[in-house]
Amino acid sequence: MGIVLGPNQYGKAEVRLVRIDRGAAEHRITDLNVSVALSGDLADTHLTGDNAKVLPTDSQKNTVYAFARDGIGEIEDFGLRLARHFVDSQPAVHRARVRLEQYGWQRTTVDGQPASHSFHRTGDGTRTATITYDGGTAWVVSGLADLTVLNSTGSEFWGYVKDEYTTLPEAKDRILATAVSAHWRHRDAGERDWGESHRLARAALLAAFADTHSLSLQQTLHAMGSRVLSGQPDVVEIRLALPNKHHFLVDLSPFGLDNPGEVFFAADRPYGLIEGSALREDAPPPGEAW
Amino acid sequence: MGIVLGPNQYGKAEVRLVRIDRGAAEHRITDLNVSVALSGDLADTHLTGDNAKVLPTDSQKNTVYAFARDGIGEIEDFGLRLARHFVDSQPAVHRARVRLEQYGWQRTTVDGQPASHSFHRTGDGTRTATITYDGGTAWVVSGLADLTVLNSTGSEFWGYVKDEYTTLPEAKDRILATAVSAHWRHRDAGERDWGESHRLARAALLAAFADTHSLSLQQTLHAMGSRVLSGQPDVVEIRLALPNKHHFLVDLSPFGLDNPGEVFFAADRPYGLIEGSALREDAPPPGEAW
Amino acid sequence: MGIVLGPNQYGKAEVRLVRIDRGAAEHRITDLNVSVALSGDLADTHLTGDNAKVLPTDSQKNTVYAFARDGIGEIEDFGLRLARHFVDSQPAVHRARVRLEQYGWQRTTVDGQPASHSFHRTGDGTRTATITYDGGTAWVVSGLADLTVLNSTGSEFWGYVKDEYTTLPEAKDRILATAVSAHWRHRDAGERDWGESHRLARAALLAAFADTHSLSLQQTLHAMGSRVLSGQPDVVEIRLALPNKHHFLVDLSPFGLDNPGEVFFAADRPYGLIEGSALREDAPPPGEAW
Amino acid sequence: MGIVLGPNQYGKAEVRLVRIDRGAAEHRITDLNVSVALSGDLADTHLTGDNAKVLPTDSQKNTVYAFARDGIGEIEDFGLRLARHFVDSQPAVHRARVRLEQYGWQRTTVDGQPASHSFHRTGDGTRTATITYDGGTAWVVSGLADLTVLNSTGSEFWGYVKDEYTTLPEAKDRILATAVSAHWRHRDAGERDWGESHRLARAALLAAFADTHSLSLQQTLHAMGSRVLSGQPDVVEIRLALPNKHHFLVDLSPFGLDNPGEVFFAADRPYGLIEGSALREDAPPPGEAW
Repeated sequence: MGIVLGPNQYGKAEVRLVRIDRGAAEHRITDLNVSVALSGDLADTHLTGDNAKVLPTDSQKNTVYAFARDGIGEIEDFGLRLARHFVDSQPAVHRARVRLEQYGWQRTTVDGQPASHSFHRTGDGTRTATITYDGGTAWVVSGLADLTVLNSTGSEFWGYVKDEYTTLPEAKDRILATAVSAHWRHRDAGERDWGESHRLARAALLAAFADTHSLSLQQTLHAMGSRVLSGQPDVVEIRLALPNKHHFLVDLSPFGLDNPGEVFFAADRPYGLIEGSALREDAPPPGEAW
Repeated sequence: MGIVLGPNQYGKAEVRLVRIDRGAAEHRITDLNVSVALSGDLADTHLTGDNAKVLPTDSQKNTVYAFARDGIGEIEDFGLRLARHFVDSQPAVHRARVRLEQYGWQRTTVDGQPASHSFHRTGDGTRTATITYDGGTAWVVSGLADLTVLNSTGSEFWGYVKDEYTTLPEAKDRILATAVSAHWRHRDAGERDWGESHRLARAALLAAFADTHSLSLQQTLHAMGSRVLSGQPDVVEIRLALPNKHHFLVDLSPFGLDNPGEVFFAADRPYGLIEGSALREDAPPPGEAW
Repeated sequence: MGIVLGPNQYGKAEVRLVRIDRGAAEHRITDLNVSVALSGDLADTHLTGDNAKVLPTDSQKNTVYAFARDGIGEIEDFGLRLARHFVDSQPAVHRARVRLEQYGWQRTTVDGQPASHSFHRTGDGTRTATITYDGGTAWVVSGLADLTVLNSTGSEFWGYVKDEYTTLPEAKDRILATAVSAHWRHRDAGERDWGESHRLARAALLAAFADTHSLSLQQTLHAMGSRVLSGQPDVVEIRLALPNKHHFLVDLSPFGLDNPGEVFFAADRPYGLIEGSALREDAPPPGEAW
Repeated sequence: MGIVLGPNQYGKAEVRLVRIDRGAAEHRITDLNVSVALSGDLADTHLTGDNAKVLPTDSQKNTVYAFARDGIGEIEDFGLRLARHFVDSQPAVHRARVRLEQYGWQRTTVDGQPASHSFHRTGDGTRTATITYDGGTAWVVSGLADLTVLNSTGSEFWGYVKDEYTTLPEAKDRILATAVSAHWRHRDAGERDWGESHRLARAALLAAFADTHSLSLQQTLHAMGSRVLSGQPDVVEIRLALPNKHHFLVDLSPFGLDNPGEVFFAADRPYGLIEGSALREDAPPPGEAW
């Protein structure tokens, strides 16, 4: 009937993996959410239900846990190990993509001393990585999500288009707040200190958000992206999605009160959503990275 | 420093709009969540904070509400009106994308009579549409999300790859359950009965899920997609994402009980995630549709 | 140091249980979330970690699944079986409380025919039950949650207190919308048709919401509660929590448009929250029911 | 028909308030979610819709914002101001309860220097307070929620009841993890340093969790509660709810691997739920505190 199979992939999503490293006097904890997606020669299972080329998602899950036995290390390294395994061991798998989220934990302090085996979860952003491997090339995209930031001043918004539906007053001093979702592509998948790279990128995002006097959230976004690229020659592209978490100044005049930028209503919906990217002029093509 | 602006867009997300049509003796309700994303000549606001070409997201929100004053109709039509307005009225806007979600409501029955103005929300799937317009072409993608379906038999999974990490036993009779997310592209944006088209597509998805004896969720996915395309020549492509919501048979043998496919544990995570698409051989290229 | 143990309980929460009844030509599905809480002679485990009187929460979970082997029936009956089992079989357990949520499923229709084994989930309210048993008395509280209702007219709000912080204009015609959470206590735990009772209560809640011309959400709440009690002598008390899901009329006058009760913004937060109860004058004391 | 009004209350819930203190060279941020519930002489609005004694929830919201104009300070103080205002200014209001949640923010550091007006949200627990006032007495309950903690060793569970549904193996070394929800009652509402009291309580909870060698989560719970009471004579009662966030050791033996307490599956549902309380022998009765 002239209907053909289009792009497809499958895998196990959201494998929740916690690893305790017990070797040291102090334990260490790694807390991950791992999702695998495989694509390749999968026409049979779609068209006839013949699964001879299908590695079950359950086996993928087992692989994640088994590979963790040898240690996890940085999530980029762990993702690379997994992605390469799936493609290299399964002839029908032509591409593997592994998405990882890492939740932060902080060692608990008791009476001023760090506890050896007690932790509490931090909540100031999730570290992420997306690893893609096609049998020849590996791509590494690192990132973070759910890092909520706010500037209490240093943000303006004016000089914009006024059409017949525009009622927004111009602002010379407003709150600027967003939940940062940022993902950056590395030039290649060669060995490096992914952890240090992530710390640098996170610090750059926070610093650029803090010290950019903002005329628009787009400007802040571009400053944040550029700062990450400037600090690391290895990073060739960055994509950001920044919801504009509106804080509306409450009109207190009906109660005989002024409100000089002090009392705000934090709104849920709707919100502005600013999405943008920055890249090096010499960035290699993204290939299958994203 | 050799860093350039990459692809970007911005807009107001999740505008919650409820419209009451009061003309008839019986009221009607339309309940939407509308998100707008505009792209075009936006370099200035990113690079210098000059907003002269920026239509505020607040104005976009106002436009959604103002356009609703004239009636909403089918969400595809409403989205087309909005998308065309933004591009046609704003020289700097080269592409508008409008995403719409519609929540279902059912007229309440009291003593066997339909109430004239009282409704309760249904929860068996959200209708969606994504409209994209670039000043010349308009693309319409219709869809649905959050429709959870389950077959209590008629599903097998066997004959798959067994690697060193495979422990899954083969299944000749298992529960198959998923939350359908399906989005289908129309050949063009010409006038038609979008509501009838959606009803047909939804019925086709449900029917194909129900009457396909499944050897893999991929097979079921392809059957669902093909059924939608078969029923409507106008639909040229469909993309589906189907989480495999695992239902594990509980081992009751420690309690001296058998369990002939009756008692299941419904797991949250991890889950299989099957993503696939089907398209007509003569489908026009997708352009900016997705 | 003069610190004593206060009230306590423990148990397994959110046991996700799906049962397929295969006896008939048509399968039936029961989809539950079951939580158990036990209290009694538990001082030792709190004070010294001696668990000799602790039935593990894992065993409670096993019990839920094992009891489902014999069939579930109405959730009130299933909860009574479980609660009585825990108290009657464990000397240290003096009270068991079982909370149950039941998710609705509808048989799928294919070409006008009901499918024998294919279902889709409804989303118009969750049925609930809370069963408590203390070794002598059993209490049954039935209920529903997450049933969202809306009246597009027939709601006023005026004549209220105006203090120095009041700016709300009086309303002679507004949208009234809420997500019903209602729980009603039965006179006793004797055998009856719990399913029919639930259908009657749900219909009474919907009807009273629909046909009460409302001067306040409190009035509507009381009408809803009274309607349930009026219809079933067995029901002696009802408690409702009704968030006032605000729908604000959008001011379209800046765009040269009127808005005669047609275009609304559906707000997320804040919301009014109205909580109230109604009971029969001859209601027995609630004991441990809630 | 012999149906009477039972207990009831109403108010505005989830008022999202952000306050910026700009007096200092460094700004400070207070981020709250405030819910008000009033009860009193409310029969008329329930029975006839006469609202003459109803202070609109909209006015309550306005009051929250207007009171914030004078500064917020500690949430216990802010809640006391609000609760007293509602009861003392409204003759029909006999009791006000104000629930507050405070989200943490950390000043951002740029190049080793604290930023003057840039912050990022922390996520390691929400501070809470519940203030109740009946016109004569005020009760203060402080608390925290969503503080997730984990011990990687030092937890056992054995010696429990084995009934016919018990299959759980005894554990001499397991992961213990929970999300702490703890609420403690102060002896009275007199002035004190609520912030310091909260810091002490939080530190006590973390320390007791960390340094208690646990034979059951109940034992840990009691140790945590007792530690808070021991450290502050002013705190007379504490209630805790601790979900047992199960971490299951993955069986790697099918892959020829051991797993000496290193690789775990973090499960979502079901979970154990341990609820308990501790109080001073000389604690005053709780009255309306909870």
